[in-house]
Amino acid sequence: MLKMRSPCPIANTLDILGDKWTLLIIRDAFAGKTTYGDFQISPENIPTNILADRLKRLVEYDILEKKPYQQRPVRYAYRLTGKGRLLGPVLKEIIHWGKKNIIGTEAKIKLDL
Amino acid sequence: MLKMRSPCPIANTLDILGDKWTLLIIRDAFAGKTTYGDFQISPENIPTNILADRLKRLVEYDILEKKPYQQRPVRYAYRLTGKGRLLGPVLKEIIHWGKKNIIGTEAKIKLDL
Repeated sequence: MLKMRSPCPIANTLDILGDKWTLLIIRDAFAGKTTYGDFQISPENIPTNILADRLKRLVEYDILEKKPYQQRPVRYAYRLTGKGRLLGPVLKEIIHWGKKNIIGTEAKIKLDL
Repeated sequence: MLKMRSPCPIANTLDILGDKWTLLIIRDAFAGKTTYGDFQISPENIPTNILADRLKRLVEYDILEKKPYQQRPVRYAYRLTGKGRLLGPVLKEIIHWGKKNIIGTEAKIKLDL
């Protein structure tokens, strides 16, 4: 599934998560968001085409799972898988670094990491 | 210096590090690489224009510092600053997640995290 640049775990993780948006969707999943509409509303204003693409990829990589929560019309909820929840410590260290090293940074969202 | 998408420390950190290459350069700095030529040689074959751009940005963000190690012609060494070294725990958690969750991943490079 993943074409590897090298066996390096950092390179391979970046092939999944290495962009400006993916970890924000994962942040929002840790904050309890589940629907496309929920994910769309964020202070960073994620473009809808990027949101749709990243949700699809995160399901493919088994980081989020997608299940219908409503029929006619079908609507889906996205939730972190076990593998997704294991990203909690990565987010924790990023939050810690950002708060300490980037002026004006403030963690306002409560995450269940 | 940094135009903020939001006050979120994850968003702001991704504006600096959120791509497929930047953390690989930081990995290599933790592995002891210092020169442009050293950074150029990696299993992931970083394109030279990306390497030059990312080194410049990392110096601007005070994550690497650039000092001449030779005159005529001047050549520079890039080393992690204190702020850069504080990224060690972020890399550690990414390595841990990648090794556990991506098949075929193997940490071959010894890092001084």
